[in-house]
Amino acid sequence: MAQMYAAAKQGHRPSLARLLSLVERGGAPARAVGALAHREAGRGYVIGLTGAPGAGKSTLTSALVKTMKADGLNIGVLAIDPSSPFTGGAILGDRVRMQEHALDDGIFIRSMATRGHLGGLALATPEAVRLLEATGRDYVVVETVGVGQVEVEIAGAADTTVVVVNPGWGDAVQANKAGLMEIADVFVINKADRAGTDDTRRDLEYMLDLSGGYHPSDDGTPVWRPPVLTSVATDGRGLDELWASIRDHRAHLEATGELAERRRRRSEDELSHIVTEQLEQRARELRTTEGWRALVAQVEDREVDPWAAVSRLLAD
Amino acid sequence: MAQMYAAAKQGHRPSLARLLSLVERGGAPARAVGALAHREAGRGYVIGLTGAPGAGKSTLTSALVKTMKADGLNIGVLAIDPSSPFTGGAILGDRVRMQEHALDDGIFIRSMATRGHLGGLALATPEAVRLLEATGRDYVVVETVGVGQVEVEIAGAADTTVVVVNPGWGDAVQANKAGLMEIADVFVINKADRAGTDDTRRDLEYMLDLSGGYHPSDDGTPVWRPPVLTSVATDGRGLDELWASIRDHRAHLEATGELAERRRRRSEDELSHIVTEQLEQRARELRTTEGWRALVAQVEDREVDPWAAVSRLLAD
Repeated sequence: MAQMYAAAKQGHRPSLARLLSLVERGGAPARAVGALAHREAGRGYVIGLTGAPGAGKSTLTSALVKTMKADGLNIGVLAIDPSSPFTGGAILGDRVRMQEHALDDGIFIRSMATRGHLGGLALATPEAVRLLEATGRDYVVVETVGVGQVEVEIAGAADTTVVVVNPGWGDAVQANKAGLMEIADVFVINKADRAGTDDTRRDLEYMLDLSGGYHPSDDGTPVWRPPVLTSVATDGRGLDELWASIRDHRAHLEATGELAERRRRRSEDELSHIVTEQLEQRARELRTTEGWRALVAQVEDREVDPWAAVSRLLAD
Repeated sequence: MAQMYAAAKQGHRPSLARLLSLVERGGAPARAVGALAHREAGRGYVIGLTGAPGAGKSTLTSALVKTMKADGLNIGVLAIDPSSPFTGGAILGDRVRMQEHALDDGIFIRSMATRGHLGGLALATPEAVRLLEATGRDYVVVETVGVGQVEVEIAGAADTTVVVVNPGWGDAVQANKAGLMEIADVFVINKADRAGTDDTRRDLEYMLDLSGGYHPSDDGTPVWRPPVLTSVATDGRGLDELWASIRDHRAHLEATGELAERRRRRSEDELSHIVTEQLEQRARELRTTEGWRALVAQVEDREVDPWAAVSRLLAD
């Protein structure tokens, strides 16, 4: 594994792909890869990109990566959207569009399958991000569909989170409902050649006004108000502005010390997830014991009430 | 508390209401009430009633309770639907309709507030059910809205689960998607005076066919295929049939020994929930310790990777 890891650092793509598969599968091999990667991670910068299904996230990701690559950057993409072309849900056109990067040396694209186990994905994603960083990626783009708590959480666990909406009444409201307002650092109204772009921009600005906290603070610390951009990902319009906005946000985070604080919180959240996972594992193991079966019988016979039964079980 | 419990058993409604509030709030007092009630529970029969918002669940519950009461039964209702009139979401008309029972001695109605903490509700509901049983209810009807895993689980944790749908294309498909097909023992197409009732019935029967398992088994054990009934809850049509169907299902469960098996599984599920809750509590406590803060710092400094950090923490 150390050999595979060294090879991946040398740019050997099959080795990197194999290590990512191990991370995705979990268990002891994933932990070993994680231990290697953790030491050398933290150098890259993580962009989260999310939005409702059909918002054009994959096309936008593809166009963004193309724009970033023009700056000579080494980029990794993790696509966690179950409807993403990388994970097999979408139309062939998109799939082909993204494939143009697949053989490009500066870009590494990887789909992460949900396999109906999002909890596992929430744990595997930060490890996959670290592996991509540790093996030389300057930027890692994590694309998820912005529905469901776990997906939104994954998208929000980035240095800069881009939220994609579409023109038309209600899209901004939906984004708000899905919890996307809280995690957005940059908004992009994609498919901005369609009607309703101005309405959506006004709705988003209005909701930003309402949520407050975007005025300069008393001590003069600059405050970041998420800009509302427009794009037409299919022909590349607005992509330069999006990439510039991401760099602006990065500069802001670095200048204010917020980047370190964000990453500390992210570490803490990840540790919390792992603690929960490990305790749940312990609970699953408990359920296979003789003591468990005996207690269920006692509860059934009304000899002991459920809470007292669990107290006994956990005290052992 | 023992006095309050004794009074509730004598039919003193304010005492019962106060005990239910304690159960709802959780913590040590809830555990004490639970211990008292658990010993004498299990005599009543639990009916779960669920369906999409707007399906007319509250009106149907109200009409069903009225029908059951005609048999001289003592009935408890727990309304866990956040859009239910009991919990404050619905129109005044419904609220008034249910209030007609509120002062009736044979019927005790209680709303359980979600307070944004459904996990707590999943734990409190079985305790509230036991309290109602232990203090003399022959039947307890648990009404929940059939969206969301927790709500569906609560509705499914019954002896007989009634799933309410409406006429019209797609309603059966929605019910299937929400996981309601798996928990249904009886289907009711409510508002059956509207167009589309036959379509919905056909859809439901078709999905029942597909899910299989409803043919007589080889050893001759009778198999219950959920009947598809119709009702117009607002004028009481179909309610006698619904009540008859619930009694048929009860007779089936008792004759086959399935009732005991169902209740054993329910006990086991409840114990699992409590184990998870207790371990999560432990995880929350962990996060306030000095050791936790030290580990977060070490992870940040890349001295230890997150999984190794958690292993250390949990080994202490």
